[in-house]
Amino acid sequence: MTVKVGVIGGGQLARMMIPPAVEMGIDLRVLAEAEDSSARLAASMVGDYRDLETVMSFAKQVDVVTFDHEHVPVTILESLEEEGIVVRPGPAALVHAQDKAVMRQRLGELGSPGPRWALANNSGEFQAFIDAGDSQAVIAKTPRGGYDGNGVRVVADPVELGDWLEVGPVLLEEKVDFQIEVAQLVARRPSGEVAVWPLVQTVQKNGMCAEVIAPAPLDSSDHAAARDIAVAIAEGLGVIGVLAVEMFALDDGSLVVNELAMRPHNSGHVFTELSVTSQFEQHLRAVVDWPLGDTSLVAPAGVMVNVLGGVNRASIPKALAEESAIKVHDYGKTARPGRKSGHVCVIGENATNLRATGARAATILSGTTSSD
Amino acid sequence: MTVKVGVIGGGQLARMMIPPAVEMGIDLRVLAEAEDSSARLAASMVGDYRDLETVMSFAKQVDVVTFDHEHVPVTILESLEEEGIVVRPGPAALVHAQDKAVMRQRLGELGSPGPRWALANNSGEFQAFIDAGDSQAVIAKTPRGGYDGNGVRVVADPVELGDWLEVGPVLLEEKVDFQIEVAQLVARRPSGEVAVWPLVQTVQKNGMCAEVIAPAPLDSSDHAAARDIAVAIAEGLGVIGVLAVEMFALDDGSLVVNELAMRPHNSGHVFTELSVTSQFEQHLRAVVDWPLGDTSLVAPAGVMVNVLGGVNRASIPKALAEESAIKVHDYGKTARPGRKSGHVCVIGENATNLRATGARAATILSGTTSSD
Repeated sequence: MTVKVGVIGGGQLARMMIPPAVEMGIDLRVLAEAEDSSARLAASMVGDYRDLETVMSFAKQVDVVTFDHEHVPVTILESLEEEGIVVRPGPAALVHAQDKAVMRQRLGELGSPGPRWALANNSGEFQAFIDAGDSQAVIAKTPRGGYDGNGVRVVADPVELGDWLEVGPVLLEEKVDFQIEVAQLVARRPSGEVAVWPLVQTVQKNGMCAEVIAPAPLDSSDHAAARDIAVAIAEGLGVIGVLAVEMFALDDGSLVVNELAMRPHNSGHVFTELSVTSQFEQHLRAVVDWPLGDTSLVAPAGVMVNVLGGVNRASIPKALAEESAIKVHDYGKTARPGRKSGHVCVIGENATNLRATGARAATILSGTTSSD
Repeated sequence: MTVKVGVIGGGQLARMMIPPAVEMGIDLRVLAEAEDSSARLAASMVGDYRDLETVMSFAKQVDVVTFDHEHVPVTILESLEEEGIVVRPGPAALVHAQDKAVMRQRLGELGSPGPRWALANNSGEFQAFIDAGDSQAVIAKTPRGGYDGNGVRVVADPVELGDWLEVGPVLLEEKVDFQIEVAQLVARRPSGEVAVWPLVQTVQKNGMCAEVIAPAPLDSSDHAAARDIAVAIAEGLGVIGVLAVEMFALDDGSLVVNELAMRPHNSGHVFTELSVTSQFEQHLRAVVDWPLGDTSLVAPAGVMVNVLGGVNRASIPKALAEESAIKVHDYGKTARPGRKSGHVCVIGENATNLRATGARAATILSGTTSSD
């Protein structure tokens, strides 16, 4: 009678589903890429998520399949559904997080605010897109396979696309002048029930989320607009589970959708401490079709700072001693330059102070202080 | 470089150490009694904790040994320490949680408030203890091996002791007229740093903790007195990790120590939701000698209600739908009459309302409502 949830992918998002699964008595099983995956404690199989036979045999052991990442081929997920396996979010929704051109097309149909965009098949189409706009540079994206800034370039000349056009059409988006970047998380269950957390600000470095500030420092009307956009997307695409809608907040307060993620997302880590219900608990509740949890905040503000490269574990006591308010999250990974290896979270009254605390702690944990 | 913590015993307390271990990157390993233990996800070995060879081979794989229960023979733990293995709490402290007569003796020396007590070796000594007091009945306890009301009886005549006197001396304690029962949790690390949570009220049914109300409805002077008693015991006995001091609060506001537990304790489950730092996170931080966490509350009040017998898993959606504020904790056990199988926790403003909410949810989860 215990519900079994299978997660494809053994990264930190799968890892951070383990705590709420343990608390709620959900039997969480992970299809991991390698023996030493971040989610290894819950790994029931190690194998290639691009191999139908592997994924099928994993999926048949669980009641519902969900994801640590969006890279499982849609054809495989369709085969699972044909076998009667429950996949949440399903391939019809997930394709919008896999393929940015499909996403742009569909969001346009739904009326979500987006930048001017086009698919360019060659240099001529690239130049035509540039010529139609005001800016000399555009954002070029490979429609598939990008993450953490990979597959995204600011480009003024087709030469800068390198071999991308040889692989397939390139998505071009007009560069948007924004005030801040924000993310709206929403969870949706099969019944249609949705839950939203407050909008957060994301601070990117080198194309990667470095810091999250909750709530985002915008007017309540902007918060409401962000919620409406995200809920409309979740409903329009039929998302089940957590959906993160990354947006640009422009100087005039308007919002433009940048990216989608259909799973717990870096921008939502802050809610593990800041909200009554974490995004990981909520994702599990959504995919097993349980009523969603309260997304109220337990403090006025919270800040999350990523630890990149590696967590210097010998420095954890120092970080906890010097910044006693922080919570340390270590993803159990080996160090590698730029790798998301952990994060710190701190909640309290004043975001400015929390940011300073979080930054100091993250610096200690990444072992880069001169005193180490 | 990852810290390895070995927990002897695979019950729900070991299980609930898994979430903070995963978050903090601690490699938690459990020596479980059976394959299907509550903490099976983290079980690295299944074996008998009363077998020196088993415990020694388990302990050699970890950096520090700690406990899900207090039943590991002190002689085994002393052997571990002789081999240089770090045991927290150590046997010199743990013996006070194993043997209630040793505890009474030592608490008396420390000046902790306790009831009048004696060890009776025979019926004559039993009668002498009765005759020396005002009451016709006393609390009789087997000094070792009791839990959840087992090994404790209210006795007026030696006949009611059954075969206890044949096994060894029986601990007799004068019955105390109390207003409410309370528990003070304290955590202590090797450096001597201590952290305390607010005093909680415990409501017992059939000798077992059924409900916890935090904070306890007593004056702040009583709260301070409870803290002082618990900290003095933690320091006096050299406890490392979480210590629960169960006490009677008398009508005149004075406190009498009833029992000790040297591990996370049922009375502290409420802090998983109610405090910035749960007892499970704190216990791990204490035994690995990291700075202790903030024990502030995130809401004015919290209530925990145990689910006994078994969690009716099909009823979880109903419980979450009808009582949306609750958190469900399922220990992953098979049903058995009276077995502690899970708990619900709810935090908020008003303890009276929270108690009603918690009771309704626990009733739904234990599957005993007429509508099921």
